[in-house]
Parts: sequence; structure tokens; C-alpha cells
Amino acid sequence: MADALVLHEDRCFDPDPAVRRVAHTLYDETRRLPIIAPHGHVDPRILATNEPFAEPAALIVQPDHYILRLLYARGVPLETLLDGDARKVWQLFAEQYFLFRGTPTGAWLDHELHDVFGVEQRLTGETARSIYDAIAERLASLEFRPRALFERFNIEVLATTDKASDSLDHHRAIRESEWPGRVIPCFRPDAVFKIAAPGWPAELEALGREHGAPLVDYAEFVHALEDRRAFFKRMGATATDHAVLEPYTAWLPPDEAEVLFQQARQGEATRADERRFEAHLLLEMARMALDDGLVMQLHPGAYRNHNQLLFERFGPDRGGDIPVATEFTRNLRPLLNAYGNDPRFTLVLFTLDESTYSRELAPLAGHYPAVRLGPPWWFHDSLEGMTRFRERTTETASIYKTAGFNDDTRAFCSIPARHDLARRVDANYLARLVARHVIEMDDARRMARALAYDLAKETYRL
Amino acid sequence: MADALVLHEDRCFDPDPAVRRVAHTLYDETRRLPIIAPHGHVDPRILATNEPFAEPAALIVQPDHYILRLLYARGVPLETLLDGDARKVWQLFAEQYFLFRGTPTGAWLDHELHDVFGVEQRLTGETARSIYDAIAERLASLEFRPRALFERFNIEVLATTDKASDSLDHHRAIRESEWPGRVIPCFRPDAVFKIAAPGWPAELEALGREHGAPLVDYAEFVHALEDRRAFFKRMGATATDHAVLEPYTAWLPPDEAEVLFQQARQGEATRADERRFEAHLLLEMARMALDDGLVMQLHPGAYRNHNQLLFERFGPDRGGDIPVATEFTRNLRPLLNAYGNDPRFTLVLFTLDESTYSRELAPLAGHYPAVRLGPPWWFHDSLEGMTRFRERTTETASIYKTAGFNDDTRAFCSIPARHDLARRVDANYLARLVARHVIEMDDARRMARALAYDLAKETYRL
Amino acid sequence: MADALVLHEDRCFDPDPAVRRVAHTLYDETRRLPIIAPHGHVDPRILATNEPFAEPAALIVQPDHYILRLLYARGVPLETLLDGDARKVWQLFAEQYFLFRGTPTGAWLDHELHDVFGVEQRLTGETARSIYDAIAERLASLEFRPRALFERFNIEVLATTDKASDSLDHHRAIRESEWPGRVIPCFRPDAVFKIAAPGWPAELEALGREHGAPLVDYAEFVHALEDRRAFFKRMGATATDHAVLEPYTAWLPPDEAEVLFQQARQGEATRADERRFEAHLLLEMARMALDDGLVMQLHPGAYRNHNQLLFERFGPDRGGDIPVATEFTRNLRPLLNAYGNDPRFTLVLFTLDESTYSRELAPLAGHYPAVRLGPPWWFHDSLEGMTRFRERTTETASIYKTAGFNDDTRAFCSIPARHDLARRVDANYLARLVARHVIEMDDARRMARALAYDLAKETYRL
Repeated sequence: MADALVLHEDRCFDPDPAVRRVAHTLYDETRRLPIIAPHGHVDPRILATNEPFAEPAALIVQPDHYILRLLYARGVPLETLLDGDARKVWQLFAEQYFLFRGTPTGAWLDHELHDVFGVEQRLTGETARSIYDAIAERLASLEFRPRALFERFNIEVLATTDKASDSLDHHRAIRESEWPGRVIPCFRPDAVFKIAAPGWPAELEALGREHGAPLVDYAEFVHALEDRRAFFKRMGATATDHAVLEPYTAWLPPDEAEVLFQQARQGEATRADERRFEAHLLLEMARMALDDGLVMQLHPGAYRNHNQLLFERFGPDRGGDIPVATEFTRNLRPLLNAYGNDPRFTLVLFTLDESTYSRELAPLAGHYPAVRLGPPWWFHDSLEGMTRFRERTTETASIYKTAGFNDDTRAFCSIPARHDLARRVDANYLARLVARHVIEMDDARRMARALAYDLAKETYRL
Repeated sequence: MADALVLHEDRCFDPDPAVRRVAHTLYDETRRLPIIAPHGHVDPRILATNEPFAEPAALIVQPDHYILRLLYARGVPLETLLDGDARKVWQLFAEQYFLFRGTPTGAWLDHELHDVFGVEQRLTGETARSIYDAIAERLASLEFRPRALFERFNIEVLATTDKASDSLDHHRAIRESEWPGRVIPCFRPDAVFKIAAPGWPAELEALGREHGAPLVDYAEFVHALEDRRAFFKRMGATATDHAVLEPYTAWLPPDEAEVLFQQARQGEATRADERRFEAHLLLEMARMALDDGLVMQLHPGAYRNHNQLLFERFGPDRGGDIPVATEFTRNLRPLLNAYGNDPRFTLVLFTLDESTYSRELAPLAGHYPAVRLGPPWWFHDSLEGMTRFRERTTETASIYKTAGFNDDTRAFCSIPARHDLARRVDANYLARLVARHVIEMDDARRMARALAYDLAKETYRL
Repeated sequence: MADALVLHEDRCFDPDPAVRRVAHTLYDETRRLPIIAPHGHVDPRILATNEPFAEPAALIVQPDHYILRLLYARGVPLETLLDGDARKVWQLFAEQYFLFRGTPTGAWLDHELHDVFGVEQRLTGETARSIYDAIAERLASLEFRPRALFERFNIEVLATTDKASDSLDHHRAIRESEWPGRVIPCFRPDAVFKIAAPGWPAELEALGREHGAPLVDYAEFVHALEDRRAFFKRMGATATDHAVLEPYTAWLPPDEAEVLFQQARQGEATRADERRFEAHLLLEMARMALDDGLVMQLHPGAYRNHNQLLFERFGPDRGGDIPVATEFTRNLRPLLNAYGNDPRFTLVLFTLDESTYSRELAPLAGHYPAVRLGPPWWFHDSLEGMTRFRERTTETASIYKTAGFNDDTRAFCSIPARHDLARRVDANYLARLVARHVIEMDDARRMARALAYDLAKETYRL
């Protein structure tokens, strides 16, 4: 016999009645605010075509690297999950669903199953089949088409993440359709910065193709980047995004960029070359941001494709990206000294290294006008992770130097669950301050709204 | 006048009634489960001979480096503690016992005094003498012989830690006795890996002696290690253990291991040589583990014998071992790429650097099938330390990629206290999740049992 | 309409009734203890001259780099704050005061406004003017003269921080006055250690002038330092203080110190030279401390003047000092091996890198007799920061290896607020232990008093 899936009204709130009462009140005032999703990985195609979603396993299990990761870590072969029959994959997932108890993935999924798909039983091996059927049935209906869900989710704006060479055809299609949903691109040129990567020549060529001219020297390369930024901006973008191993920034000596660029074109760029080239390009990006006003996001500290075997067999995002210790104070100094005092510039910093919250990030954000702290990223986008972030950054940087929430997800149907969890955690954080008489209730109200809505809009210039 | 020593039934539980009620219920279901002690430093001799323990100071104070450390840090000379008259040592310890208020040592000792020795007064300068006498009297009785305590403690299995060259005579004696207690060795070959240490030649010789052939080249050395692992396994071992400064792993080029080995035999190996040799041997250990199925434990990050003066006068474990920042992501990549995907392999990772919990360890355990997280080690085996560990690892790795508890102690009589504290902290951690409606009560029940018993058995293949 | 400014009696205490009740009781026993302020930056001139304080903006806003920092970070130009009309600066500050909700600056200021200046309305744009007038009026009265406040604040001893070349004329004036307040200097020779700094020759010359002889060689330089320490001690000092980027200590080879000193006199010392020179001088300072008994404080880990632009325009303490990761275990080993076991020596360690609390600092303090942990410093001197410090150090080092509280402030009128916050947080920390039955109430009482008063006196030999 299966248990009922119940989402408790006060979940994630401290059990202390004084805290819970306040948290509940604050959350009640933010829970229905529109969703601002300024950073994420939803495929714009789904909103351009508005075709029905695939069946449950392909929608929920197979594209979610949080789910695949933990199932794999407990011994389930990836082949079984990726290539198997959809119903069998779903069954296997349901049988292992206990693994996700106490994880954000578990919380998001329960929310998504219950609130988006109307599931009323807990997912287990026994209920797998009937839940699969119920979801599949709903997915076939018109109200579960992507655009209908976008509206039901009350999304005010949704940013995707797109390569520098992306034609943005899907974004164009959305804009040219009658549909009023605001879906905007974000300029992420990582692939053309990684000059030591085997795929770089192809990426460069693709960029040149979109740019309309071959990129034969560094000046033309920079020109193409400027052009593409302008194009993205015309298509609605308000931000760029940059993933690097270290947030290292340093100007190259004159002509050195050209030398490295030509070495890369000969296929002779080393990892050390790449590191210096990227450090210089981050400065170029900041320089351009002053002109075009695009907000610059920096996501450093993930050692990509740590698991060589899996990377070779299954490609990126399945190869075990693992964080490393990250240094911001020295690495960002050149960039911040050049542009950090300029009111035209906004730099949103993310980290996978929580030890930097209080040590480096809050002090930087609490000093430089340009710096904002992005929300807890990835492994830290969780009840405890978000709480740690607030507890370690607010006292130095205040909440007003943070960037609100972003869901960073490719799982479209999990967006409401993720924003809901963040709003709950922030309400609870503020309630703890109220209950300890550190802030007054009217302050808490304003702060709750800022965290849920205002700060994201303000930071990302939406 | 002396106060009563009372162990509160709900100690370590949150005062919030909602949390406490659940914590109490969960703990009630785990408190009497047998103790699995898969990693520790109890001397097997005491269980082989089953002789009575010495008097209280020699049993409780002098061998406990947690106690010596803090007394020394407050100005008590080590000579006084180690060479003094037993009753005077005990008196001095009792007078300084207030230092341990709020530390795990204080919690363990109160538990041990009360539950194991039936002490009913708090230990102070005034009560020192009568408590000494009471303990001494009990130690003389048959019920306080080591094997009787082992049974009373409800220990299902106890692993010791033994050098590669250990004859395991005590273990043999236990196995050959009528006594059914399960006491197993653990293979810890550190001493023969540290080729730059002055004691290495003697360690190598001892290994050769036990192996039955002089270890004149690297091939024979590796052969000896394989043989000894097999011997330990026959004697009941299910695991190996490796203490290193850094968890650095890297294959040596062909023949390089032989070159280093010969240099070491000439007494010419440097610390840099040792580092590379150890990095290679960790890989060899993992390779062997695939064949013989011994679980591999890694304890990195202690700078041993930091206090040169004390080390010279009092030897190891008294010379102030101090943690250093530890890097896992890059250091372990060669080992994990070679063996981390293999279902035959289990690697249990420990750390003294809590910043790695959420940054590196939980992501590694949440991805690689072979990786398990060992419990909070040493300075972090405490109420707050264990809570931090759960709060920072569960959301990424789930509890099911952790290894349950191990007490890591040489203080035999403190074993129940340590497991009890861990079970309380885990019950309280889960109760907080229940009270916040993050997990359901039936999940919490299963998870509490897993943390207290199942996971240790499963991880260590017991 | 303006809200009332109310300081809740139980602010900062956990809302849980069991914790709050105990916290309240403990705090009631420490709240009126005299203030020991063994480390801070109050200008001794104010107590020497006892002149009235300036108007509110010059007293409260302009010298407080915590306030300037966050206003600047939200886009207020420093020029506006530093050069503007006093009433306008105050108005601007009041309008942005919401930024400080949830920060320690906000808590301190509310306390200062309410308890020191009798303000009864919350500071906002609307109330700015009347509050300004009220404070200005009070500042003009005799009871608001510095010495009167010193007495009203119940300060038992106040240490300032003074350059090696300081004549200590203000301290002399205080001692020679009839006024019995105890104000003592602290010897901070940083400026003469930084041999690569452009200002070093002038600093050296000033030191020689006070010493009474030109400092032409290293021996004379060391001699001058010894002399100045003796002079500071005669003037009441009980401690020295040393700010370094890294806590690196290492003996220079014989004659090398002389070589570096002469290079510096030629203006040829590099940053690398400076690093080695400082590492050697820290050892010299410890050596001298054994003789003269001055307690040695070490404040490492601030990257000074990170913001070059602001530093050039506004000078030090406005140029954005940002923390960096800090290593203690290896860096301090030479110093601790030389002097850490000596009962004559006390070394108080501070950090801006919280990851070192449990990893390095508590283990060092829990082993070496000489080591004490200073209170959470700067960005970490806050409700959450102080709680983290206790939770991460007590279990390894006990509270008895910490140094009590110090306010580290130049804002004289904020001293009571800062000590009050610390006493509240420590009371709450202990109350949590009591409520979880980890310690008994009588222990908690003794510990609360130790944290509020005894430990600071004992550590700083006051």
C-alpha cells in the first residue's frame, strides 16, 4: 500500500513556533510573486515549438544530472539509465528514490510531482507504474504544453544560456510568435575562450560563420565578440556568463593576445596559454560590459569531466564535474581595479567553495560597487546550503549586495519547486532574525520581497 | 560537597520539543543495536590475554592523547602526567576536569564513568580520590575484564589497526581461544611507505622477516605487500588503512619505483621522493583491493609531530599532530580514474579539513561508485562536528554514500560512549529534518538504523 | 511617522524558551561586569585632551570604515561621504540605514544611539534631522566628554594601538593627569618591518629619532625595537601586535638579516625580501616576548588596499582590505617549535579565514601552551560569526584557550555595544549547551564569566 504524497505547508521552516509563525507570514507574501529566472539552462526550443513534452523518464530522469549522478554513485550503470526502456528506467528510479530523501532533488521532485503533475502518492517501486501513467496522460494534454506551463508557473522572464555562435533562431521564433512570454538569451562564449581544447577550431569557425567573416586575427576575434554581444542584446539578453576553472584575471602584454590566438589557430596552444588567454578575455568582457551594459556572471571552480571514462563514453555533464578550492581576492584584483568602481558595471560572482563566502566574497561585495553575489550554486542550492550562504554573507555584505535567486536548471518543470524552496529558506532565515529581535518585522517584509523578486530584477537589469 | 553525575536522557538533542520528541524516538530504536567498530586503535593484546586493566590513571588518563593534549596546552608538564604517581596524576586530572566542559572528551568521560564504572558523582578535585578507588575496585573484578566488557558493550565486531609487519599473534590467540568475540585486524602499511623516514630500513626489514624473504627490489616489496594483505585477510581483515599528508596519487613512470626503492635502501630518499613513492603505492593498493576485496581507507591531512621538542622527548602521538588544508579533487583523480568506477572497489575518505565536506568530498562520493565518506574524524568527532558533517554532505551525497560511524579510539572503555554520542547526533540530525517536514518519520527510522548499523557493515563488508 | 527604536531585552538569544531562559540568566550575570578592552584602535588623544566630540557625522559616520564600505558598495561616492556637509552626510546615511539591517554595524549603532545617546526613534530619512540635533546637543554636554563616557561605559582598561615610533605623549598626558582611567598602549611595529614599502625609510628614521640614535645596521635596529618595547611596557603596555599578510615565520641564515636591512636602506628590498625579513622579525619578537613578558598578537590574512584607485585617493583603511586564505600549521611551526612550549610566552592568534578555526587554530591552541585564540576578527565579529567561532573551536581547544573578547574598534562610543553583543552571543552559546544537557548550569555560569571578563584579563596579563 502506498503512502500519500503530502507537501506540508510549513516544510523547511524551523519547528520553533516563534520562527515558524514569522516565516509563514513572510513566505505568504512572496510565494505568489512572479518568477524571475535570470540564469538557467532551459532549451529555448521547447518554448519556440511548444510541442508536448516526452514521456516521464525522458522528461524527468534522463536529462537531470543530479539524479543520474547519485544513482550512478550507488552502482546503477549509466547505460541502463540512458539507453533503457522508458518504463524500466522510471521503475528503477522509483525503486531507488529513497536515496534522495534529505536532498534538494528529493524536495524539488516531490514538489514537481505533486504541484505540477497532481501526483498524490509517494513515488516508490509499487507506485511507479501508476504515477508514470498519470504523468504521461497529463503531458499529452494542452495545459501541459511548455507555454501553458510557463504561464501557469507565473514566469515573468526566463533567461537561457547560449553559445556565442548560437543563431538564437529559437529565441527569434518566440519573439516573432504571438505568444507574449519573455524568454531571453544569455551570452556564454566559453567555448571560444578555451584555446587548448580540441574542439576550439570548430567553435571558432562557427563563431566566424555567425559573425559573417573568418576570424583570422585577434582583433577580428574581439570584434566578433562585440558584434555577437550586440546581437544577443538586440535579442533581449541582459547578461553574459563565463565558466572558468579559476577566476584568474590578468592583462596580457601588448601583442601577446595576437600571438596566443595565432598559436591556437596552429593547434599549438597549451593549457597554460589558455589560462592566460582566458584571464585576458575576462578583462575584455568587463571592458565591453561598460559599453553595452550586459551584466557579467562568473561561475568559477568546477573541475570539468573529472571522470575520464564517463566523459569519453557519455560526454560532458555526465563526466563528474567536481569543485576545487577557489581564490577570488588576488585573482579578481586586476579586473576589479580596472572596472570594479564603475557604476556602469555589474559583476555577479558564484562559487562552489563555501569557504569563500565569508572570507572573500562578502568582503568584495561589501566594498566594490560593481560586485554582487550570485545565489548558492549547484551543490549548494539546497536548504542547508542557502541557509549557510545567508548566514555567512549578510553580516558583511547585507542582502542588498546579493542577486536574488536563480534556478540554474535545464529541468523546466522543476522551476517553481526551486524558486519555492529558495523563498521558503529566505523567509525562514529572516524569521530567525525577527525571532531573535535582530530585525523588525517591517524590515523582514521588505527584505523577503527583495530576495524573492526585486534583487534579481535589479541586478540583471530586467 | 560533590554534585551528582547525571547523564540526562535527552542530552545532545535540540531543546525544541518537536525535534526532541522525534530524536528521542529515533534514538530509542538505535541505542541498543550492536556496535560495529570497523576502524580503531584498541590493542588486541588486551583481548588476547584478557588480563585485568591497570589502575584508573593508566587506563583513562595516560594513554588518551585528547586528555594529555589539553592539559598540556593549559600548562601541565607532560612529565608530570606520564611519569607521576598514579593517584597524583588522577588528582591533577580531576582538578583540571573543568577544561573538558563542552568538549567530546568531557561527554565521553562522563558517560564512561557513569555507565561503565557506575560513578555517581561528578569528577572534581574533591571527589577524585573516592572515584579513583571505586574504579580501581571494579577493575579488579571479573566483570571488568576486557572480554566481559566487550560482551557487555554489545560489540559485534571490532577492528584494530596493525602494521604490515605485524605477526598478528594476538589476533591468532583470540581466534584460537574459545571466546567468540569477533576482533579483526586492519592492514596499515604506512611505515614501509615512508621511504625518507629514519626508521624505514628497520620497517622494511621487519616486513621482510614476516614475509619470509629479504626485500631487495621493488617487485619483491610489492609481492610482500600482496602476501601480507592475503595473510591479514585470512586473519579476518576486511580493510586497509593509509595515513598520508596529502591524498596525492600518481603513477610513477616504468622503472621509477625500482629506482626510488633502491635509493631508499641506500638511505638517499628525500621527502620529495617519498611523496612520489607514496602516491604510486596508493595506486598499487587500490589495484590490489580490486583483487582481494579489502576496503581501502584514506586518512590524509595530519601534519605529524608538529612539536619537535615533544616528539623528541615523548615520541609519536604526543608531538602535536596538527591538520593542514587538504586537496582531494585533483589529488585523487588518477586513482579514481583508474579504479573509481569499478564495483569491486570501495574507498573510504576521511578528512581533517571540514571545508572539503561540501566542496570536494560530497561531490566525489555523490558521483564515483567506489567512494564512501568516512565519519567525522578526530577533532571533528563531536556533537557540532558530526552535525556539520551531516549538514554539509547529505544534500549532495545522501546518507547512503557515507560509511556509518567508527570510533577510531584506543580507549577501549570509551567505545560505548562514542557510539552513543554518534547515534544521538544522527538521531537529532534526522529529527530536525522530520520536524521541518523535509523527510517523513518512516524514512527517518530507516535512515537512523542505516547510520547506526547497516552502513558500517555494508561499507566495510562485515 | 517614525517608529520607536526599541532594543529588545532578549535580542540575539535563540527564540526557544529553554535556551532563552538560560541565556537571559547567564547574560544577567555578565552584562554589568567591567569592560576589558585589550585590543582596539581608539585614538588616545581624545582621552588625553578630553575635548568634546565633534558633531554626529564626524563622530559616527566618517571614521567608521564598516559604514563607509557598505555605502560605497551600494554606489554612494566616497567624496560625498568624506567631504560633504555634515548634516547632508548624516541625512544620506540615515536614508541608506536600511542597508545595515541584519549586520553587526546595524546592531551596534542601534545600541549606541539608544543607550549612549538616548535616541528613541529608529534612524530613517525622516528622523535623521531630529536625531542629529539630539546627538549634537548631548555631545556638547559635560557628561558626553570622553572621560565621562569612559567611566559610564565601565571600562576597566582600554588598550590603544601605537606605532613603534610613537612618542606616547597622549598616554603620558593621561598618566600624568589626575584622571584614574587605565589607558595603555600596544606596541605595533608593522611599519618598520615592511622594508619594501615606499614609506619605510621615513618610518625607520622616525623610529631612530625616538630611539635616540640612527639605525644604521640590523643590530641597532633590533636594539631599538627592544628599547621601544621596554618603553611601551613602562607606559603600561602588556602586548604587541603584528599584522602580516601570511603568518610566515622562518629564521634567516646568519648575517642575512643585516644584508636585507642594508638592501632596504638602499631602497632595493623586494616584496620577497620583505616577506623573509618579516618572517624573521616575528621570531625576534617572540624571543623578546620571553624576556619582557609582552603578549604577542598576530593578525594575518588581510590583503591591504585591494582597491588601488581608492587607496590612491583616500589612503589606507579606505582602500578595501580583503581577506585571503591563511595557512597557520606550517607557517607557525618555526615560531612554535622555538617558543611555543615556553610558559613565559603568550601568542594570541586571529584570523579572517574561518576555515582555519577547526582545522588549524583550535588544534594549535589545544596543544601549545603559548597559544590562545583571539576572538572573531573584523568581518567575523558578529552574531553569526561569533557563534561559528565558539562552535568550531570549543570542542577541540575548550573556551579556556581563547582570549575573551576584544572590540578592535576606533569608534569609542560603540565599545559598550560591541561588548554587549559578544556577551549576549556567548551567553546564548552556553545556553544552547545547557539546554542540550551538554554542560550543567553551574559550569555555564563560570564559563560565561570567563568569556566576558576573566579570560581577557588573564590572557593579556592585565
